[in-house]
Amino acid sequence: MSASQKPAPATNGVALEQLFATVDAVKATPSIARFTFRIRNQWDTGSRNCSTVSTFTGANQQLSHPKPFTLEADEPGILLGQDLAANPVEHLLHALASCLTTSMVYHAAARGIAIEQIESAFEGDLDLHGFLDLDREVRKGYQRIRVRFKIRADVPDEKLQEIVQLGTGHSPVFDSLVNGVPVSVAVERL
Amino acid sequence: MSASQKPAPATNGVALEQLFATVDAVKATPSIARFTFRIRNQWDTGSRNCSTVSTFTGANQQLSHPKPFTLEADEPGILLGQDLAANPVEHLLHALASCLTTSMVYHAAARGIAIEQIESAFEGDLDLHGFLDLDREVRKGYQRIRVRFKIRADVPDEKLQEIVQLGTGHSPVFDSLVNGVPVSVAVERL
Repeated sequence: MSASQKPAPATNGVALEQLFATVDAVKATPSIARFTFRIRNQWDTGSRNCSTVSTFTGANQQLSHPKPFTLEADEPGILLGQDLAANPVEHLLHALASCLTTSMVYHAAARGIAIEQIESAFEGDLDLHGFLDLDREVRKGYQRIRVRFKIRADVPDEKLQEIVQLGTGHSPVFDSLVNGVPVSVAVERL
Repeated sequence: MSASQKPAPATNGVALEQLFATVDAVKATPSIARFTFRIRNQWDTGSRNCSTVSTFTGANQQLSHPKPFTLEADEPGILLGQDLAANPVEHLLHALASCLTTSMVYHAAARGIAIEQIESAFEGDLDLHGFLDLDREVRKGYQRIRVRFKIRADVPDEKLQEIVQLGTGHSPVFDSLVNGVPVSVAVERL
């Protein structure tokens, strides 16, 4: 294998040269750090709707995924749906799980911490008294979310905690969900 | 068709009898309103990981989806992934879109408001100076999210705004994301 064919050095599957090059590029040209992600959603009927994920803006460019991704949603029968897809609050847990995991994997890689395996379990508690307007004291959203990570890595016990904190300390979804995000909503006639 | 074979009355695809029966059941037995949703996530490599959505707790029962749903995550190439799936912050937008849509559809149905069509577009702004630890003043999460709904319904203009407010006023994901949720995180060795 010639030098040009060698795979780039990677820790945890993260191309470190590209990661550090990104940091240098942002330092040189701060505007490339601004990203806008977007989806379009279409209602089908009842609790069934579907989002298309196609383009995003970043590094001062309009960018596209190689093909649009389709994300579906439904509700289980007990919540009046047909149970053809995960429901919105389950999708929210997936967003949180995937973001915490990727954030800890990337930041561990940047520090040279090799991780062999990560599994996690996420649970969120909801009380329908909120959604159904039966008790104004009960919030509509999750009351709390519990996360349990299991990590296999050749590190001392105290380092496991540090790895997880690399996730909670950097994850965009964790920050968004724990600290809240301003959301503006407009409507027009179709 | 005999009376027993008649489809239940539905508005917006929502079975109204079942919706009102749910409200009555919760009033009679408040504990059935408590739900716990859950997912399990498994890291593959780099930015690739996958959640399984299988069981949930509600109405004082352990419940299961008819088959487990699999939700994937990756990052685009510019964020060091292989772009095989939507990324975590795009999944977050889908969770928000699907929940706002379902919430407005259900609550409009309960009020007898028929909706013909709903389309929506969601955008969120992120600045990587946060994630990359390059500026402590820049948050890791979304700085703001913009939502645009387009609704077709035989209602006056001011009613369109009211329909959207049925979404923002009841959606569990909207409430979770705008107002924040406490998240506890534990870790153990795998």
